Amino acid sequence: MSGSVYGKHFKISTWGESHGDTVGVTVDGVPAGLSLDAQDIQAQLNKRKPGQSAFTTARQESDSVRIMSGIFEGKTTGTPIAMMVENGDHHSADYSNIMDKFRPGHADYTFDAKYGIRDYRGGGRSSGRETIGRVAAGAIAIKMLEELGINIRAFTRSIADISVSDDRLDFANENPLNMPDNEAYEKAAAYLEELKSQGESAGGVIECRITGLKAGIGEPVFDKLDASLAKAVFSIGAVKGFEIGAGFGVTGLKGSENNDDFAVKDGTVVKKTNNAGGILGGISDGSEIIFRAAFKPTPSVSVLQQTVTTAGEETGIEVKGRHDPIIVPRAVVVVESMAALTIADLLFDDMSSKMDYIREYYKSK
Amino acid sequence: MSGSVYGKHFKISTWGESHGDTVGVTVDGVPAGLSLDAQDIQAQLNKRKPGQSAFTTARQESDSVRIMSGIFEGKTTGTPIAMMVENGDHHSADYSNIMDKFRPGHADYTFDAKYGIRDYRGGGRSSGRETIGRVAAGAIAIKMLEELGINIRAFTRSIADISVSDDRLDFANENPLNMPDNEAYEKAAAYLEELKSQGESAGGVIECRITGLKAGIGEPVFDKLDASLAKAVFSIGAVKGFEIGAGFGVTGLKGSENNDDFAVKDGTVVKKTNNAGGILGGISDGSEIIFRAAFKPTPSVSVLQQTVTTAGEETGIEVKGRHDPIIVPRAVVVVESMAALTIADLLFDDMSSKMDYIREYYKSK
Amino acid sequence: MSGSVYGKHFKISTWGESHGDTVGVTVDGVPAGLSLDAQDIQAQLNKRKPGQSAFTTARQESDSVRIMSGIFEGKTTGTPIAMMVENGDHHSADYSNIMDKFRPGHADYTFDAKYGIRDYRGGGRSSGRETIGRVAAGAIAIKMLEELGINIRAFTRSIADISVSDDRLDFANENPLNMPDNEAYEKAAAYLEELKSQGESAGGVIECRITGLKAGIGEPVFDKLDASLAKAVFSIGAVKGFEIGAGFGVTGLKGSENNDDFAVKDGTVVKKTNNAGGILGGISDGSEIIFRAAFKPTPSVSVLQQTVTTAGEETGIEVKGRHDPIIVPRAVVVVESMAALTIADLLFDDMSSKMDYIREYYKSK
Amino acid sequence: MSGSVYGKHFKISTWGESHGDTVGVTVDGVPAGLSLDAQDIQAQLNKRKPGQSAFTTARQESDSVRIMSGIFEGKTTGTPIAMMVENGDHHSADYSNIMDKFRPGHADYTFDAKYGIRDYRGGGRSSGRETIGRVAAGAIAIKMLEELGINIRAFTRSIADISVSDDRLDFANENPLNMPDNEAYEKAAAYLEELKSQGESAGGVIECRITGLKAGIGEPVFDKLDASLAKAVFSIGAVKGFEIGAGFGVTGLKGSENNDDFAVKDGTVVKKTNNAGGILGGISDGSEIIFRAAFKPTPSVSVLQQTVTTAGEETGIEVKGRHDPIIVPRAVVVVESMAALTIADLLFDDMSSKMDYIREYYKSK
Repeated sequence: MSGSVYGKHFKISTWGESHGDTVGVTVDGVPAGLSLDAQDIQAQLNKRKPGQSAFTTARQESDSVRIMSGIFEGKTTGTPIAMMVENGDHHSADYSNIMDKFRPGHADYTFDAKYGIRDYRGGGRSSGRETIGRVAAGAIAIKMLEELGINIRAFTRSIADISVSDDRLDFANENPLNMPDNEAYEKAAAYLEELKSQGESAGGVIECRITGLKAGIGEPVFDKLDASLAKAVFSIGAVKGFEIGAGFGVTGLKGSENNDDFAVKDGTVVKKTNNAGGILGGISDGSEIIFRAAFKPTPSVSVLQQTVTTAGEETGIEVKGRHDPIIVPRAVVVVESMAALTIADLLFDDMSSKMDYIREYYKSK
Repeated sequence: MSGSVYGKHFKISTWGESHGDTVGVTVDGVPAGLSLDAQDIQAQLNKRKPGQSAFTTARQESDSVRIMSGIFEGKTTGTPIAMMVENGDHHSADYSNIMDKFRPGHADYTFDAKYGIRDYRGGGRSSGRETIGRVAAGAIAIKMLEELGINIRAFTRSIADISVSDDRLDFANENPLNMPDNEAYEKAAAYLEELKSQGESAGGVIECRITGLKAGIGEPVFDKLDASLAKAVFSIGAVKGFEIGAGFGVTGLKGSENNDDFAVKDGTVVKKTNNAGGILGGISDGSEIIFRAAFKPTPSVSVLQQTVTTAGEETGIEVKGRHDPIIVPRAVVVVESMAALTIADLLFDDMSSKMDYIREYYKSK
Repeated sequence: MSGSVYGKHFKISTWGESHGDTVGVTVDGVPAGLSLDAQDIQAQLNKRKPGQSAFTTARQESDSVRIMSGIFEGKTTGTPIAMMVENGDHHSADYSNIMDKFRPGHADYTFDAKYGIRDYRGGGRSSGRETIGRVAAGAIAIKMLEELGINIRAFTRSIADISVSDDRLDFANENPLNMPDNEAYEKAAAYLEELKSQGESAGGVIECRITGLKAGIGEPVFDKLDASLAKAVFSIGAVKGFEIGAGFGVTGLKGSENNDDFAVKDGTVVKKTNNAGGILGGISDGSEIIFRAAFKPTPSVSVLQQTVTTAGEETGIEVKGRHDPIIVPRAVVVVESMAALTIADLLFDDMSSKMDYIREYYKSK
Repeated sequence: MSGSVYGKHFKISTWGESHGDTVGVTVDGVPAGLSLDAQDIQAQLNKRKPGQSAFTTARQESDSVRIMSGIFEGKTTGTPIAMMVENGDHHSADYSNIMDKFRPGHADYTFDAKYGIRDYRGGGRSSGRETIGRVAAGAIAIKMLEELGINIRAFTRSIADISVSDDRLDFANENPLNMPDNEAYEKAAAYLEELKSQGESAGGVIECRITGLKAGIGEPVFDKLDASLAKAVFSIGAVKGFEIGAGFGVTGLKGSENNDDFAVKDGTVVKKTNNAGGILGGISDGSEIIFRAAFKPTPSVSVLQQTVTTAGEETGIEVKGRHDPIIVPRAVVVVESMAALTIADLLFDDMSSKMDYIREYYKSK
C-alpha cells in the first residue's frame, strides 16, 4: 500500500490531500550544484493554480511553495529537496452533501473499498491537488533537462471533438485552454461555456513533444522509454488512453507505410518520418518524442446521477461545488512534469554504466 | 542499464536473445504450496509457438520448457522458479544480408546507439523470442489467479480495419488469428494472405478482459492499476497505444455520459455501465477490467525500404527471412501474461498490509 | 545519488540538514485506520532531543513535530503521512572556524568529494539531526507493532569498557545514559565528565531486543531479517559494527555449543538457548531477536588534530561548539526506530502472499 | 516473499536449491563490450567447489558453468547474462534420517514456519549451494572492477581463536584454509582435524580489503557504502557479525584516538590512519576499505543434539552425511563476490548523475 514514490534515481515522494493541511513532495537524487530557487518552482505551480480563468474551479489558492531543505547558497547540494504548499481555501462545508454518497466517476467508492476509510471532505488523495507535488518536483527536472538542451512541451490537442489543426498549430498562441490554435480555442471556449451552463464537463487530449534527447534512453525489456512514459502519464488522474507517435493509427498502416526510413543528415542517422514517435525498441532514437494522452471529462457534474450511499442505499446525486468544467488545460503542466521526471530518471540510468566514462574517470587522479 | 526485472512481489527476471543459446526466466515470490508442473507452463508457451499457421514465421522451435528449480513433489516451495527453453532453429545464415544495415522499424539502430554493440544475427533482445520468459512466468500467475476465481482473457479485437463486432463476439470461435468472430476472421485471413504475397504486414488491436477481481487493487498515486497495466503492456515490443474502458473515446462524451452510475445488486455496489473499464482512481472497482493495446505492423517486410549502414552510408534494404505478417495473434498470450503478472503483484501489495488479517494472525498461536 | 528512501512497503523518505530550514519525513504505506496523533510522534522525538542532560549538546531545539498529511479524525487514512520539525537554534556562527577545513572523523571530506559542494555550517545531511525523520517514522511503526504485541527495546549496553552486567540489568533503572544498571551508569557518568573536561568523547554499544515476533519474518536469500537489520542499523551515522545473538562470540564455540537445541513448550517449538539471536536462515524463529551495534566516539573533539583545508593545505584543527561527548544514549531511540521500520516492512512482505488468507478473502463477498 | 534479487543497477537474480536440478543466476545490468567467457566464471566457482581438501564436504560436484545468454563473440552485449550449474551428486538417500526432524542451527524450522513446506532432502535454498549464483555473478563484477584498478581480496582472518597475525600476513601463502599466515594455518589445520574426529565444527572470521576505490562511493543516508556492505555480507548464510575498520574496537578509543587525521600526499587528501576502514559518513574516502565478518560453526555436527520432529515430538538427532567442518575457507570467495556486486552497484549509482559528464556528453554530437 505504498504507491506514492516514483523514480529510481530522480526519486520523488509526494504527500497531501485536497482538504489536509499541506501538499508537498521530497525529491531525492537531484544532482548537486544546480542553481535553484523557489521562483523556479513557483513559475510551474502557477500554471496549474486554480482560479485563473472561467474554465477552472473558483477555489482560491495562492499555492506558494516553500523549499524546506536541500538548497544552500542558491545551489542544490545533492541532498533531498522537500517542498511544501499550505492548503488554504478548504471550504469543507461545500462537501457536506456528498459525504455519505459515492460520487459517480470519482474514486470515493474504490478508496472506501481499499482503505476502509474515506476523507469525505473532497477527493482526498485522488484530488487534483495531489499533482502539486508532481509539478514542484517536475520543475526541477525540467530546469535540469533544459540546461542539457532537452525541452518538453505539452499542449491541449483537442477538447471534445475540437482539435488543434497541424497547420494552424503555433505555440505563440497563448490562451487559458493551452490550445495553440486560436480558431480551435475559440470554438472550444464557446463549447465549454455551454457545458458549464448545463452543469456538464468535457474531456480532451493532451499532446507532448520532447526535443533534444539523444538516442539511447530507455531500458529494455521492461523499463522501456515508452512503457515508462505510459505509466507516468497514466498515473495522472482521469487519463484513459495513451499513445506514442502514430499510436492507434498504426493499425491502419501496412508495414512499409509505418516503418520510418533511415537517412543520413549532417553525419547523423535520422528518420525521414516519425510514426515511431521517437522510440524504437523502447529506446529513444534521437528524433522528437511525441505522445498523447486522453483525459476523461471532469466527473463532478451538477446534473442528476444515480448512486449509492455509504450505507448501501440507492439514491440520486448532484455534485455541487467549485469544479473545473475540463481538466485538460490545467493538466498540461502535469503531463510535462511527469515526462520530465521520467526522462531524467532514465537519462541517469543510461549514464550509470557508460564504461568509457567510468574508465576515464578512474584513470584521472 | 538493468531493465529486465519486473514486479515487486511476484518478481520476474528474464533473459535471452533470438539467436543466443537459451531464453528463460526466474520467478521470485511465487507462494509456496501451489501445484505446478511443466505442462502448466508448456500449454501457455504453445500458444505463442511459431510455425503453427500460415500467419506466423516458419521458424521451427519446439519451445520445450525445463523447470530448473523451485518445485518439490509437484508443489512450489516458495523459492525462485527458474525456467528455460533452448533455442533450436537459429538459421543464422538467413540474417547475413542485414548484419551491417539498420532495419527500419526495428531496434537495430537504437540498440547500437545505446550499447555500442549489436548481435547482428537477428532481433537479439528485441526479438519476439524475448517474450518466452514473460509467458512462462505469466503461466504461473494465471494459474494462481484462476484458483482465486480471477480470469484473464485477451483476444484479437481488430486487424487493420477489420474488427470483431460486439454482437458476433463468441469465445467459442477458435481460429489461428485468435479473433472470436468467424466473419471477421475470414476477412482478416484473406487480407493477410494478400499482404503476405506483397511481402507486407499488418497491425491490429488486442483487447483484454479480467473478471473476478475484487475492488481495492492498485496503489495510488503512482502504482495505480491502470498505470501499472499500461507499463506492463507497453513493454511488449510493437505496442504503440493503450487504453482502458472507453479509452480515447471518453473525449467525445460529456461528464454525465461518461460517469458510470452506481447501483446495488445482491447487496454489492455495482456500476450500471463500465466506461471506466473497471478502474476508478487507479483502483479496481469490482467490475470487469477492460483494456486494449494497439500493435504496429511487423517491421520486417520484404519490400524495398531506405536505410543506412552501420558505417553511415545510405542504402536500400529488403528484409528477407521467416517473419510473421502480423504480430497480434501470437501476442495475445503475451498480453494475458503481462496482465496476470501485474495483477498478481498488485494483489499481493494490497494484501500486504490488511491490518484485520494481521491482527487475527498475531492473535493466533 | 538517491539514498534517502528506505523500505519496500512501509516506505520512508527523509529530508533535512543540520542547518537547513526543516527536517522531516514522509511515510508511505501506513495501513489505514490506525489511531495516531502528534503526541505519539512527539514522545519518541523527545527521547532524542538535545539539551536534556550534561551528556548531550547544548543546542536548544524544541523539536516540535507537525503532522502535515495522512490523518483524518485521529486515524490514518492509508495515504502518505508527512511530518516536519522546524530547525530553530542554528547558531551558524559557531561553525565559521571549520568552514574551510575537513574535520577528522566527519564526513566533510567525503561529501565534498562526492557532491563537489558542502554545506559548511555543520554536518549537513550527516548530522545527527537527520535522524529526526527516522524517529518520527519509527514512532508510527513502533505503535503499530505494539498493537500486535511486538515490542522493541534498545538500551546502552556499554560505554567505553563499562558494561551493563546481565545480572544487574533492570529496565526500571532510568537514567540519562539509557543504561539499565545503576552501578554501570554511575561509573560511565563519571568517566564521561572526565572526558568532557578533556574535550574528548567516548563510544559504546547499543543492544536491542525484540519480543513477540512470530516465526517466519525475513526474505531469503538477500532480504533476510538479519541482513536487513544490519543495513538498517549500519545506516545510522557512527555505527562501525553489528552482530546478532552470540555475534562475534560464535567463533569461539564448537558447532554443538553454538547450535540451539529445540524443544516443545506449550505446544510450540522453542529453542533452549538463543545464540542465534532469534534468527535462523535469515528468518525469525519465534524467540527473542537480539542484536548489538558498536558506535564510535563523537568525532567532534576540542583537542588538536591534524587535517587539511579545502584548498589542500595541511593544518591543525580543534572542533569547538556544542557537541555530545557520546552519541550512544541519544541513538538508542534511533536504533529502536530503524528496527521497527525494518520489522514492519518485512512483516508486510511476509503477509503479502499468504495464500490461505488470500483464498479466504476471495471466497468472501 | 521475493528476496532473491539483489542490486539496483548490477542486478542479480539467483535460483536453486541443494537438491534441485540446477543452481544459477541472471545478471542484469552488465555494461556492454566487456570481454567475458565461461573460464572467467569457472575460475571463481572452482574456489568454492567442494571436495578439494580435507576441510570440505566430500560431495562431488564438477560445478561446470554454462553461460546461457548475453555474450556475443566473446563480449557482453548489455543484455542479461544467465549462468547455470547442474546439480550432479544429489545423494538424496543420505538425508532420509533427518527428513522429519528440525536440525538445530539450521533453517529447517524457520523455512517450515514461513513456507509451510520444506524440501527435506537437504538445506534447500539455505544450503551453501545457493552461493553458486552469487559467485558466478560476482566473477563478472570482480573482472569489471579489476579493469578499473579496483581490487577485492578476502581471506580467513581467524578460525576459532587462531588468528592470522598482521606481521606474518602474506598473501603469497596459499593453503586450503585461505589463511595467509602459514603458522596460523598449521595450528588451525590441526585443530580442525581434531574437531572432525569429534564430529564437531568451528567458526571463524573473514576479512576483506578493497583497494583502488575512489572517494565518493555510497549513497547517504540509507544506502551508505558500509550499510550496503553489511547487508550484502550478512545475507550470506552463517554470518553473525560484521564490522568496518576498527569495528567493535572503537568503543575502547577516545574520539581523538579513533579519528583518522588527514594529510596531503602527492597532491591528494589521505588519512594517516584507517580506523574508519575507508568509509566516512557512509561514503568511500579513497583509502583501503576493510571489513570483517564472523561466521558461525557449521551447524551440521554428528554429536547428539536435542530437537523436535515435524510432528512436534521431542527427539535426539545426530546429523550424519558429508559436511564441511568449517564454512569459512569456502566462504572467502563468496564474501569477495558480495563485496564486488555491492561496489559495482554503488559505483554505477554514483556515476549516474555526475552532471559534468552528462553536460559533456550532451554537448557532443
